[in-house]
Amino acid sequence: MDLAIALDRKAAIPLHRQLYEELRRAILERRLSQGQRLPSTRLLAKSLGVSRLTVTQSYEQLIDEGYLQTIVGSGTFVCTQLPDDLLHSASSPSENKMARLPIKLSHYAAVLTEIDIPNMAGPNTPISFRYGRPAFDQFPIQLWRKLLFRHSRASLDWLDYASDPLGHRPLREAIAHYLSRSRAVQCEPDQILLVGGTQQALDLIARLLVNPDETIALEEPSYLAVRRHTFLSQGAKLLPIPVDESGLVVEQLAKFSSDNIKLVYVTPSHQFPTGAVLSLQRRLELLSWAQQTTAIIIEDDYDSEYRYEGQPIPALQGLHSSNTVVYIGSFSKMLFPSLRIGYLVLPQQLIPVFARAKWLIDRQLPLLEQHVLADFIQEGYLERHLRRMRLYYDQRRQVLVQAIKVHLGERATILGENAGIHLIVRLHTNLSDEDIIHRARRVGVGMVTTKPYYLQAAPSGEFIFGYSALTVQQLEEGIHKLTEVLC
Amino acid sequence: MDLAIALDRKAAIPLHRQLYEELRRAILERRLSQGQRLPSTRLLAKSLGVSRLTVTQSYEQLIDEGYLQTIVGSGTFVCTQLPDDLLHSASSPSENKMARLPIKLSHYAAVLTEIDIPNMAGPNTPISFRYGRPAFDQFPIQLWRKLLFRHSRASLDWLDYASDPLGHRPLREAIAHYLSRSRAVQCEPDQILLVGGTQQALDLIARLLVNPDETIALEEPSYLAVRRHTFLSQGAKLLPIPVDESGLVVEQLAKFSSDNIKLVYVTPSHQFPTGAVLSLQRRLELLSWAQQTTAIIIEDDYDSEYRYEGQPIPALQGLHSSNTVVYIGSFSKMLFPSLRIGYLVLPQQLIPVFARAKWLIDRQLPLLEQHVLADFIQEGYLERHLRRMRLYYDQRRQVLVQAIKVHLGERATILGENAGIHLIVRLHTNLSDEDIIHRARRVGVGMVTTKPYYLQAAPSGEFIFGYSALTVQQLEEGIHKLTEVLC
Repeated sequence: MDLAIALDRKAAIPLHRQLYEELRRAILERRLSQGQRLPSTRLLAKSLGVSRLTVTQSYEQLIDEGYLQTIVGSGTFVCTQLPDDLLHSASSPSENKMARLPIKLSHYAAVLTEIDIPNMAGPNTPISFRYGRPAFDQFPIQLWRKLLFRHSRASLDWLDYASDPLGHRPLREAIAHYLSRSRAVQCEPDQILLVGGTQQALDLIARLLVNPDETIALEEPSYLAVRRHTFLSQGAKLLPIPVDESGLVVEQLAKFSSDNIKLVYVTPSHQFPTGAVLSLQRRLELLSWAQQTTAIIIEDDYDSEYRYEGQPIPALQGLHSSNTVVYIGSFSKMLFPSLRIGYLVLPQQLIPVFARAKWLIDRQLPLLEQHVLADFIQEGYLERHLRRMRLYYDQRRQVLVQAIKVHLGERATILGENAGIHLIVRLHTNLSDEDIIHRARRVGVGMVTTKPYYLQAAPSGEFIFGYSALTVQQLEEGIHKLTEVLC
Repeated sequence: MDLAIALDRKAAIPLHRQLYEELRRAILERRLSQGQRLPSTRLLAKSLGVSRLTVTQSYEQLIDEGYLQTIVGSGTFVCTQLPDDLLHSASSPSENKMARLPIKLSHYAAVLTEIDIPNMAGPNTPISFRYGRPAFDQFPIQLWRKLLFRHSRASLDWLDYASDPLGHRPLREAIAHYLSRSRAVQCEPDQILLVGGTQQALDLIARLLVNPDETIALEEPSYLAVRRHTFLSQGAKLLPIPVDESGLVVEQLAKFSSDNIKLVYVTPSHQFPTGAVLSLQRRLELLSWAQQTTAIIIEDDYDSEYRYEGQPIPALQGLHSSNTVVYIGSFSKMLFPSLRIGYLVLPQQLIPVFARAKWLIDRQLPLLEQHVLADFIQEGYLERHLRRMRLYYDQRRQVLVQAIKVHLGERATILGENAGIHLIVRLHTNLSDEDIIHRARRVGVGMVTTKPYYLQAAPSGEFIFGYSALTVQQLEEGIHKLTEVLC
């Protein structure tokens, strides 16, 4: 038998295992043909310079698995009953791949592959005005580690599944308390479903409430393209409703009531990307409209933590005691994105089906972080962190606004600067957006246009300025450099 | 003005905030009517015994939000333009809820609410033969904490999103290496998509590969009812294929090839619940059948880590180099369930659409645990832990088998005891399953029948005995007590 069997005596894998694998490969690749007799264990051991036990073990495993068979008095043979075609196909993978038809995807997958998802990572320049990134170096990491350590030592409870499909109850209690205190949201802990972030919240909503061809009303411009895609992937039709300085123009929405709008997705605290805050008047109109139709309002309370002038306006959800609002939030910006904890506040009647769907889709979130976050909120660290970050971001915001006013003056209009961690600048210039982006990049400044956030015709010269992850120096330098290339 | 305004001077909430909230509630509940004049800030401050600044701040916030308006020279009034119906509805929530139509769910949600999901928690008795729970007290928790601590200190990288939609690359490399070494799975790290456990893996498969009314072939009996429900919720038809002592009877499956079976879901390493190991012969037949049809094999490599006699049979996925197999695994039983990390090994052509779907559905898994798990595998701790646990579970298994043989003798047949962390016992008795469960519970022994795992007629007297979370004493005592009540 002329087999190239290479055994590595220094490898961590035992010799009998190596030999087993070599022989198996030889059979599958037909170097050992069906019915062929193998050398005796003694002979093979001698020729390979290994112990007879090593060979015996390999042979036994291959016999167990049906590759080899022993015929008493004759010796050990390669089995004859292995299907021919398979042996063949295993030896020629490329041919094989060609022969097989492509895998047929579901309707959902087919829609998914057709959606154009732009790259949302933001420019990777020395100074980048990308938005939505918290200042990681300001996160109280020592404290978080202390809580991680405390909980992972306290018990073994966190190793098992959480017993509740809505998520760890102490965390839901802490969130309910926080939301009622700081956002005037009316909710019981059992209305809260913990999810893996805003994205999962939206996916659950789209899956459970939207059928193909149903209409979703959205702010125009609207949130991160990827969120819009959640509805598109479900086959929904999107209806853009304009936004002005008081947020969604509800009057425009009301014109469409006959269209049977299924959901309205809004970001009332700091409209993305314009930064407009939905006025109380509009909030009441929106609730009234939803009450009259069967539409559900999805309130994405984006950026509500950061408001710099006046107190925050209470959430839509809390202005109304009926079941018109599904409220969603996450800790990605308040704490850090890779935490992957968000939540839905659900009307009573939707709780059972959402809980069931979450359980069937991925059961639950990792438990250790739920313990840690519950304590982080309950012990007051969350609100302390937010107070500190409000001051921190406010300082950056003021520096940015000042720099824009000083350097760009009349050539720029600032919008939506009273909340959140980004603002909008309309540049009054004849240059195209592409030209501005290109010129800025050459001097190391990354710019983000609002164009992809519009479903319909987008204005020119409108840019998002995220300031949360930049230093005071970077902000000033960024605007200074931008001003130079705009001339 | 006769308003019951209660301010709590000891509360953490500032007085002006409390006052604001009290006034807002009074307006929404119509205790302060539209157009009504409010007392001057001086008067109200005096009557409440608070500073005038407190009242001014509250009034200003309410003016900002459109609840109050100032008429120069006249004073401060409740706004008149608040929509009447809303004010009314806010004051009578119950009436309001009745008036609104129930929320219309999607087709998916409608199917979901109709599925009967039995309680899978297992009996909660002093000795419970529930299955699938690892021995938590054997988990190397000190080591895990050390790695958690190391990583949360090493950098701030883990706070941000992972850059790769497939998941943290070092973890995918570690898994690919582990799978090829211990399961003979053929894969590159870029074929691995990290998911939140087997349940999410199945949900992604159902969503991306299955349309309503398509047929899914399953082992009969088959895995945890809840997994079967993932396919049902997608509107799929289920086709049960019998299992014998060599696993799925592929011959029976092949009869249905004309039916255009979309997927076959199998647990070849330790069929759930029977414990049968799919023979090599059957594996090759199954691959051959899938190759000839357009069916995809879903290989759930459940319990493959624990095999007590002979070496593990290589995964189906590695026996074949074409694109017929989607392989899924998780760390729930190897490590602990609340970790929520599992993976899919995908054929090349499915990688883009699965990655895109995962990103759109919930973006990614929490990052810190991905770092920790990558090191845990790379530094050899996973395999060390598995070696230790194999001995640990083997001891329990032997005690259980011995106890059953000694106490129940001819009255019991043991099946599937060579792998996994549970075995099956067929009790030869005239008692009904319900009767056996009831009698056992009275003496503190929890029994799990296989009945819910059958789609068609289920045998009587077939029970699952999970032994992983019980002590040697509990195992012996449990069987002893069971024997007594069976007489």
